[in-house]
This record gives sequence, structure tokens and C-alpha cells, in this order.
Amino acid sequence: MKVGIIGANGYGGAELLRLLQKHPFVQVEEIISHSTQGKHITEQYPHLNSFYNQTIGKLEIREIASKVDILFFATPSGISNEILPQFFEQGKTCIDLSGDFRLIQDKTYEKWYKKKHSSPSYLKQAVYGLTEVYREKIKDAQLIANPGCYPTAALLGITPVLKAKWIEPSTVVIDGKSGVSGAGRNPILGSSYAEINENMKAYKLGSHQHIPEIEQIINEISGASTTISFTTHLIPMTRGIMCTIYANLTEKVTTQEVIDLYKSTYQNDPFIRIRSANKWPATKEVTGSNFCDIGVLIDERTNRLIIVSVIDNLVKGAAGQAVQNMNVMNGWDETTSLHLTPLFP
Amino acid sequence: MKVGIIGANGYGGAELLRLLQKHPFVQVEEIISHSTQGKHITEQYPHLNSFYNQTIGKLEIREIASKVDILFFATPSGISNEILPQFFEQGKTCIDLSGDFRLIQDKTYEKWYKKKHSSPSYLKQAVYGLTEVYREKIKDAQLIANPGCYPTAALLGITPVLKAKWIEPSTVVIDGKSGVSGAGRNPILGSSYAEINENMKAYKLGSHQHIPEIEQIINEISGASTTISFTTHLIPMTRGIMCTIYANLTEKVTTQEVIDLYKSTYQNDPFIRIRSANKWPATKEVTGSNFCDIGVLIDERTNRLIIVSVIDNLVKGAAGQAVQNMNVMNGWDETTSLHLTPLFP
Amino acid sequence: MKVGIIGANGYGGAELLRLLQKHPFVQVEEIISHSTQGKHITEQYPHLNSFYNQTIGKLEIREIASKVDILFFATPSGISNEILPQFFEQGKTCIDLSGDFRLIQDKTYEKWYKKKHSSPSYLKQAVYGLTEVYREKIKDAQLIANPGCYPTAALLGITPVLKAKWIEPSTVVIDGKSGVSGAGRNPILGSSYAEINENMKAYKLGSHQHIPEIEQIINEISGASTTISFTTHLIPMTRGIMCTIYANLTEKVTTQEVIDLYKSTYQNDPFIRIRSANKWPATKEVTGSNFCDIGVLIDERTNRLIIVSVIDNLVKGAAGQAVQNMNVMNGWDETTSLHLTPLFP
Amino acid sequence: MKVGIIGANGYGGAELLRLLQKHPFVQVEEIISHSTQGKHITEQYPHLNSFYNQTIGKLEIREIASKVDILFFATPSGISNEILPQFFEQGKTCIDLSGDFRLIQDKTYEKWYKKKHSSPSYLKQAVYGLTEVYREKIKDAQLIANPGCYPTAALLGITPVLKAKWIEPSTVVIDGKSGVSGAGRNPILGSSYAEINENMKAYKLGSHQHIPEIEQIINEISGASTTISFTTHLIPMTRGIMCTIYANLTEKVTTQEVIDLYKSTYQNDPFIRIRSANKWPATKEVTGSNFCDIGVLIDERTNRLIIVSVIDNLVKGAAGQAVQNMNVMNGWDETTSLHLTPLFP
Repeated sequence: MKVGIIGANGYGGAELLRLLQKHPFVQVEEIISHSTQGKHITEQYPHLNSFYNQTIGKLEIREIASKVDILFFATPSGISNEILPQFFEQGKTCIDLSGDFRLIQDKTYEKWYKKKHSSPSYLKQAVYGLTEVYREKIKDAQLIANPGCYPTAALLGITPVLKAKWIEPSTVVIDGKSGVSGAGRNPILGSSYAEINENMKAYKLGSHQHIPEIEQIINEISGASTTISFTTHLIPMTRGIMCTIYANLTEKVTTQEVIDLYKSTYQNDPFIRIRSANKWPATKEVTGSNFCDIGVLIDERTNRLIIVSVIDNLVKGAAGQAVQNMNVMNGWDETTSLHLTPLFP
Repeated sequence: MKVGIIGANGYGGAELLRLLQKHPFVQVEEIISHSTQGKHITEQYPHLNSFYNQTIGKLEIREIASKVDILFFATPSGISNEILPQFFEQGKTCIDLSGDFRLIQDKTYEKWYKKKHSSPSYLKQAVYGLTEVYREKIKDAQLIANPGCYPTAALLGITPVLKAKWIEPSTVVIDGKSGVSGAGRNPILGSSYAEINENMKAYKLGSHQHIPEIEQIINEISGASTTISFTTHLIPMTRGIMCTIYANLTEKVTTQEVIDLYKSTYQNDPFIRIRSANKWPATKEVTGSNFCDIGVLIDERTNRLIIVSVIDNLVKGAAGQAVQNMNVMNGWDETTSLHLTPLFP
Repeated sequence: MKVGIIGANGYGGAELLRLLQKHPFVQVEEIISHSTQGKHITEQYPHLNSFYNQTIGKLEIREIASKVDILFFATPSGISNEILPQFFEQGKTCIDLSGDFRLIQDKTYEKWYKKKHSSPSYLKQAVYGLTEVYREKIKDAQLIANPGCYPTAALLGITPVLKAKWIEPSTVVIDGKSGVSGAGRNPILGSSYAEINENMKAYKLGSHQHIPEIEQIINEISGASTTISFTTHLIPMTRGIMCTIYANLTEKVTTQEVIDLYKSTYQNDPFIRIRSANKWPATKEVTGSNFCDIGVLIDERTNRLIIVSVIDNLVKGAAGQAVQNMNVMNGWDETTSLHLTPLFP
Repeated sequence: MKVGIIGANGYGGAELLRLLQKHPFVQVEEIISHSTQGKHITEQYPHLNSFYNQTIGKLEIREIASKVDILFFATPSGISNEILPQFFEQGKTCIDLSGDFRLIQDKTYEKWYKKKHSSPSYLKQAVYGLTEVYREKIKDAQLIANPGCYPTAALLGITPVLKAKWIEPSTVVIDGKSGVSGAGRNPILGSSYAEINENMKAYKLGSHQHIPEIEQIINEISGASTTISFTTHLIPMTRGIMCTIYANLTEKVTTQEVIDLYKSTYQNDPFIRIRSANKWPATKEVTGSNFCDIGVLIDERTNRLIIVSVIDNLVKGAAGQAVQNMNVMNGWDETTSLHLTPLFP
């Protein structure tokens, strides 16, 4: 199959190039970027030397559509809702890594993204690409809204106990911590080395666009209709997201029972690894890989469950999960080109 | 006044040396370390060259007591409860940076520190040295239990709303994040560069010894008797602690009202800086200084208060607050030798 | 005395604010920045909260000149050569942290800075502010060309053996390594966290504008007329410069003899610290301070001298040396407001 | 083929496990570590979960030899010279990642490693495993002395001009810079996070054991008999080595001619990538991969050649090159299991 990547200059795009390079069933035919068109891809990304030998193209929809079967949109929010439908209408498989098709309601999108959605009628066509939870729907989808990085870590961390109704959804607090690569490759003061290094900051408290995304899925899974607390912190590292999740228990369970529940829930999911009791995952243990590692604890003193969930934000939180979804959509082994050993240390 | 530092080889000890070097009313007479006695201090800490010209001494209690008036114990837990009383009985002012005298009950100490306390009768002599909260008691104390780094950030962050009874203590969740220097200078695998860099990990979940310390003070301030959730995470940075605090509100207040409450509570506290609405403190904005910077938000969707509190763990979280307490105990201006501009970037 | 800072929004400007804040003989009257005028200084630099309470002004030369006695130019290259002369002509003391007045020949400036110099006649008025070497001339100067960060580390490292004629100038190789803050606060891709962290790169090889600056002084000190090799590397850290210097020996000397030469050359220089044999300075041992720490080695196998010289690029390499020069120019103790203990760790 | 790894607990061992896991022709049969025997491999390295499911064994030579065909020694120096010969004598293929068999003279080993060599008669059996230079000899070898990390970067950087005799060997200066993982996994103060982060230090100047290794090969390639300057610096990053190399030219050549020479020398070497003029490789552009990227410059002012060479110290500088050599020895495609895209950012 022939693949095109729209928005290839960002880190998500570069990561798609890394992952697709070894994929036996696809070939990257088109590498598109608005800001760097005309440059050779290795000028932008010297590490890709000897893997890709192409010039970055411009967005000519008709021409691209004539050449590729599958499109990845690794664009900032607000782009794909304009252009994706044109590819969709020509029957192309569309996998959108941006937030444009994740929220069911365009009003919610407008409120949190501060933009009008230009293609609201396509929202119901989109399947939310949290593979482990929505695999069956993904198989038949033509348009995937690939989950946000934080929501991936948060939702994979909380899904088993939500489904089992062992926690009270309204008490959920999710403290999110992220490396800097999630902010994209565009140089801004807030991502400058001297501002990030030896520093830690909270940001977008109460207003992060991943809040409605997480709530939407939590409510869908639990059947509840509630609000949760979700906060975001910038950590001086490049890759990695950790969500520490707190929730009040609805029944008396032990740590081992929770571990067993997680292992059983994810028994057929090759990218979920559950830690044993009193072991906690570290972000570096998943770097460069598509894993989501999870540790849990029942804190008997407070009758709360504490969950720690980690991913590589550029892989399971973006490009890796996108490729995973492509594999599922095409009936290929879900781990194709994704069975990568994390790079440690 | 003459000062002695017991445990000078750790980072807390080194930071005491930095801060006391400019103090107009004291002189560091004795620099004691079990592990490095006999070495010149600049061999251990070349950065102190041209500031100190002393050899690290050994712990000879009688001799030290004959020379100094004030003792700082920058020792690991389990040491000062053995030796501090001997100095105390000779009328020396004792400031303990370890956890040995912070918990009122020796049984609690035994449970969380996994050690027997050898001097339980002195626990009631100790005043908890959270300066902004216990200043009046500190003035008359002879033995200060200098607060832990996490408890300092957490308690300064939550005290105003606890006192005002605007939050429900039993709903408090404190997500703590720390740089690595808090683990001390002893080389262990878990603090090795290659294990920490580009990595983030949760640790000691449910069992951190700062849990009972925070609860003890929260209960003392609020009059409640409750348990709270407190977790700890290791962040790839050297200095800095951030506590993100969540609590359910007991009444309807606005972000600005909370800010006003904090400003008024801390109006006479030179080391507390309150951010304006929608501004969040970053750890680097306090690096090298004795400040605690705090930002708050009312999240109307969830009816929760979110507080972000940051300190330099080696200064306000250890050596700086110790010097602040020494200043208060001696009737000196509280900011003496501590009015330091943070080092940014 | 009243001081004005032109270009206060960069890191050099912020560092001047930190250092001048405690200076007993001056007061910062004007904080000027083209890009952030009208904002409160603590909006740009929250860490300065409770130290400065001013709004950033715009560059109105006449008005500023009427208010201040001393001007620091912390502007990018190409600015001060336009505006500094107007202050100079009104008798103001001018200390330029940029490269505009460092090179004696305007043709050399034009060649390496790729700009025409608009005030070449002032170049001979400027005194090169490498305090330890040109202290006597600085005392009588009205215009100081404050040295570049790399040249400060390189020249302090090599001056004693150049003067003693123990090395062959034409064999000098200087391998420079710098933290990122030297690149300024302007966000560019090359200083983004994700591009710098866990990365190391050489840059501007053969074309760095500090090459002619270093050569000019080496030739002035040695009486030679030669070229040297100087390279620059970006290191994943915020502050700190190290120069590793190699040179062939002209006579047979021991490491200890070189150490003695350095100690004697710098015996009256409070900011130079010479390491003993087989000890090497680390950049963190000078962080936040005005020190230059130096270690030397005679490598008998190759008959070469190796010198390692470190500074904090924002202090001794910029703002600190500028304040040091101001102190010298005014007859104040050279260490006024600069006797700072490095922040370690 | 069955493979055993002796010294699997270090980072070199962990990297071998990562690389061999995907190798189609070998299987890791034995994972041996003195310090962690009896533990499950995922206890030591949680990132290997779902890739390896073995317990770390102890060193029982007879038993291991009965099970495996190929042995990797990822031990600290001083171990393999004791045990490797016993495997060698049983006809096993031995690839030693330590320095024990790299130096031709046991006296040189003794002088620089400060240890007596216990098996000097085997030194002449060992082939120096710098694949690109000694490929033909490697094909027939039974014992490979896998090159040191610094020597790999330095020698690949300098070989083409040495062979072409375009530089004067006695003028060679190599400034080496390394991430911290090269120091191994054993916790020591010098590799602690708080001592390394935001810091840069020179170490082992004039005494690094890689000096004789580099000189031996330089002299072998050039036919000269000379000494060179080689220095080492610790950089705050986990992976990556850069060597900046300086040498006087023996004839007048242009930068482009040097680039052409390098491209032609390495035209059949899949892991060497030469940058075009005025482009410099960064360490992160090879992270996680077996590449050595090289940039060169003729500095006409000084008539010197400057070379910048980068590798991932754990891959091309250790485990990757070891696997590359195994491939060559067995007649497999040299890139088997090594054609890895660097992880950027």
C-alpha cells in the first residue's frame, strides 16, 4: 500500500517515517509539509539519511490522492478538519493524529480548541483510535481520530477499573506529566532549552483541550456523566508521558486483585504491560516503543486506588498508535513494524 | 555566634555552607562528616574554594559542644535522634534537618521510618520549623525539627484554605514531584545519571515517610483527623519540588478570592510569592532561593481547588528554612543572608 | 550611581538585574527592551518578583541619558554600534556586552559579523574588558568592550603561558564547549529543548565571530602575528563554558611549574582559582558565580600543554565581568556584589 | 546459533540484548552476570519485559560452553583476560567488548590499565574489530577485540586522511566528549545525576586507557610511530560520543576534496554517513543506531583539517559494532538486525 504523510516536518511526522520505514506492507510515497516543502527530507532530518531519499512535497490534494491509499495527518489542530474530508470522499483511509475529529460534538471542539469546526458532519464517521478499547470498531473504520498523548496514557490506565465499576468516576483526579516533544517542533520561548532544562511547570490548568477528550471516553466507558480533574505539567525531558491517577474505590479490593483485573483485561493486548505489586513503571522503560506500562496500588489508608501509566508520547501517544490502527484496519498483525524494544538507558 | 554542621558532606550540608558564608552574625566553626573526616572541605566541594579553608572534622561531641552555640544536623534519618540530645542537654540550639524529631509520636516514626526512636522524650521539645506557620513557637524553641522538603511545599500550599476551612481535608490529593538532589549525595543506582536522565518515575507510593508528617500538620491546622493521598515522583532535574494539590471545595469561591486569601495570609512573609490568576509558578523561578511560589485555580467544572506550590528543595526545603529558623530563634531579621535572587535561567 | 540596561529581556540583561540588585553603590533606574517594552519586568521574569517593580521602557536616548550615569548594552550584535556613541558623547560610562566594539579593525568586524560597523571611529576608544589582563586601562576607560564568553574562558586560560612565552602560539588549538543560554532568549529551532537535550553538536566551525577576537588578544599579548584553531560545540546544559586548550611547549617545564606560574600571574585576582595537579575544574563548580577555574597538565608524551578553563557564560562570560569592570572603573572594590558562592549542585 | 552474554547487567549487555532480540540467525541462550545472578532479567531491566523471559545465570564456564557457540564479553576490564581463553580453547567464537585484548603489547596494557595481563599469548590471536578498517581480518577471526567507544569515533573519523597521508600524524589532537552511559551501570559519585546534570568536566587527562589504543591503530594505518593528544570530557547526556579532531595538512586540499575522499573510502560501508560541506553531525542523529556520522572542514586560515565524528557509544561504540563483527565473522549480511533508524528527537 502507498502511504502519504501530511505534516511531515513535526516530530509526529518524523516518528511516522521512522516506524513506516520498516513496515513490510506499506511504502511512504508522499511526504508533505507546508513549511518545508521543496527541501530534501534529510535536510530537515539528517538522522533519516540512508532511509529516505525524497523531497518534501506540497499539499496538492488531487495529485496526492491519485498516488496514495492511506493518509496520516500529523498536522497541528485546525488543519485536518479542512482537508481530510476531501481525501475521505475519494475513499482514502484517513488517520488523523490531530485533535480535529476526536470530540463527538463540534460545540465542544469549538469551546476547547477556540476554533470553529469546518466539517462537523464527519465527526460521527470518525472512530476514536484507542486501539485496545475500540479495536472492533477500528477494523471497519475509514477515518480514525488517533487519541491524544495524555488521553492514551490516562484512558489505558483507568479503563479496566472503569469497566469493572470499582471506582467512583466523579472522584477521578489525573495528574499528567509530559516531556517537551509533545509541544511540536515549532520554536517557541516556552519550549526553549534554557526555559525547560532544570525546570518544571504546570500549564493550561483547567483549560487543556485533552480534558473533554478524556471525559468523553470515561463517560462512554463508565456510562456515567461526570467531570474529572486533569492537569498537565511540563517535565525537562524530550519523550515520555506519565499519568498518575487517583480515584475513590466503590468496593474493597486488594492491590493484587486490581493487578489481576488489569492483566485479564489486557491479556490479548501485546502493547500493554502490567507491573507486579509495588513496582512502578518509568517513562524510559517504554522510550521509542509502542508500550503502555501500568502499575497500580490500593492505598488502604485512604481507600483510594492509585494508578501510574506511562507511554512514549511520540509512539503510543501518536505515530505508533496510528500505525497500530493502520495495521488493525488492514487486517495485518497489530504489531507489524511496532515490536520495538525500548531504548534503555 | 559559632555554628557547627553535622553531616556536612551531603547536599544539605553544602547548601548550609553556601548560605552561612555570607551571614553577618554567625561563623561556621565546625564542619563535621563521618564519611569524609580528615579531608579538606574544598576536596569534597571545589566550588567552596576561596570561601572555606577548613578540614572536615569528626564527631567529638564534647569538643564540638565546647566550641559552638548552634548546631545544624544535616544527617540522614536515624542519626540525630542518637546524638542531638547530648548537645541539647548542654543548652545548645539544635536545628535538625532530618526527619528524626518531626513526628509527635515515636510509634509513627517507627512505623514509617522502620526504625526505633532512641530519644522519644525529646519529641515534645521539638518545634516543627515551618516558619510561616509556627513562627511564634520557633522564637522560643531550643530544638527545631526542620520540615521535610515535600511537606514544606505541600503545607505552605494548602495552609491558607485549611485555616479558612474552604476545603474538605479528606479529599486532599497531593501529587509531589521532586528533583534528584533530595535523595542525597550517596551514590545509588536509582540516582545515577543514566537512570534518571530522560526518565520520570513514581516511587515509594503509599509508603513515603513524608505522608505522616503532612497529615500531622494538616490535622493540627484544620482540627480534622483524616488521611490524605500524597505521592512522590522523581523528575530529571537536580533542584526543585512541585506539589500539585487537589481538594474539594466546601463553599463557592472564585479564583481571585482564593488569591486574595493567600496574599492576606502571607502578607508578612517575605519568602512567599503568590502568582496572579492563570499564572503558574515554575521551579526554576525559585532555584537557589528561599522562596515558595504558589498559584491557585478554582476549577468550576469539578468544584475543586487546584494549587501549585514550588520550592528549591535544598533551600526552602532544607538549608534555607533552617537558616530562616535560626534567624527567628535569635531575633535577627528573618531574611538575613537569605534574600537571594533566584538563578534564572 | 544610576544605571540603565539596554536589552534587558535577554539572559545577559536578566543576569545584570540579578547582580546589580545587591550592589550597594548603584541603582537600576532604567530597564529597556525593544521587544518587551510596556510589560512589567516580572511578567517577563517572574523570578525577579519582590526584587524589581518596574515597567520595561523603550529606547528614548535623550530621556535615558538624563537619568542615568552608567549604561550596560546587553543587545545582540549590530545594535550598540548604532546607539552607544550617542550616550558616550554625553559623557556616560558605556559597558557594551555585545561584540560591536571588541575588534580593533572595522574591516575585521565586517568580515566576521557580516555587517558594516557604523561607528568605526569609536573602536579605538574602547578598552577590551578582560579585567584580569587589562585592569589598568579599564580604570581610565569610558567605553568598555566586554569580552565574549568563549574569549573570556580561552584567554584567561592561556594568558600566563603566552606572557611567559612557554608555548608556540601558532600551535594553539582551542576546543570550546558551551551551554545553550549563550544563544540568547530568542526562540529558534536550534535552541529548542527537543533538539538540544541528549544531543551535542559542533557549530560555526571556521566561522565563529569569536575567532578574530581571541586571535587579536593572543597576538597582542604574545607579540606574535598568527592564527589559531578555535571551535565551538553546543552542550545540553543551560550555563557554562569550557575551553580545552592545546599548545606545543617551547621549553621543558613540569605541571607544577605551570601551576606555580598561573598562581603567581593571578595572585591578585580574586576571581581566578587554579586547581592543583591532576584536578580538573567542572563548569558547575562556577555556576552563578564570577569565577574562572583553571587546571593545567604537561603531557610529557606529546610535549604539549593542556589547559582546561571554565566559567559561567552569563556571569564571568557576560554580566558578571561587566559589573566587575564597572567596579574597577569607579574605584570600587572589584568584588562588590560579585562575591557569590557557586550554586552546587 | 546460540549466544551467551557474560556481563549482562551493564548497559553494554542490555544493549546486546536489545539488538540480538531481533536477530534472525541467533538466539540468546545464556545471560550471565556476577552481580545479579539469580534475578529475572526483567527485574534488572523492566524495559525487556515481553522480549526476554530468563533468569540471569552465573558463570559456569563448562556448562555455558556446552550450550553456546558465540560469546560476548561485556565485562569491565580485567575480567575477560582471565576467562575468555577457556572458551576460546573450546573453539568458541569470542567477542570481547572490554579493553583486555585490544593492545598488542601486554606491557602497554599493564601500563595503562594498571593490571597485569593474565593471558598475553592470546593477544596476537585477537583481531581489532573496527569493522570498516579490518573487515577482511575479522572474517577469519575467532577472537575479536571490539574497539573502545572513543577509539571507534576517533579512528573512523581520521582513517581516510591517514591512509591518504594528507595529514601529519604527530600534529593530531583529538578532543573527545562522551555521554555518561560509557561509565557503566555501577553507581559511583562521579556518575550521579546531581553531579553530572548541568555540568561538564574533563577527566583522566593524559592517562585515559584509550590513548594507546588510538595511537596503536593510527600508527598501524599511517606507518608512522608517533604520539597524539587525546582528551576526554564528560557531557550531561546518556548516550553519544563526539570526537573533534585537528591535524595539520601535508598538502593543499579543499573541503570538498576531503569529503570526496571520505565518501570514496567508505563507499561500501553501510554504517558510515558523510555530511556535505558546512554540515556537522550531532550525536542525537545517530542515537540508538549503529551509524558513525562524519563532517569535515579545511580551515584555510590555519591550514588545518577539522573532523567531527559522532556515534552512539553503546551501539557503534560497543554492542552494535560487536553484533556487526559477529555478522561479518559468520558471513551474514553486515547489517543484520542493525539497520536501525536513529531515535530522533
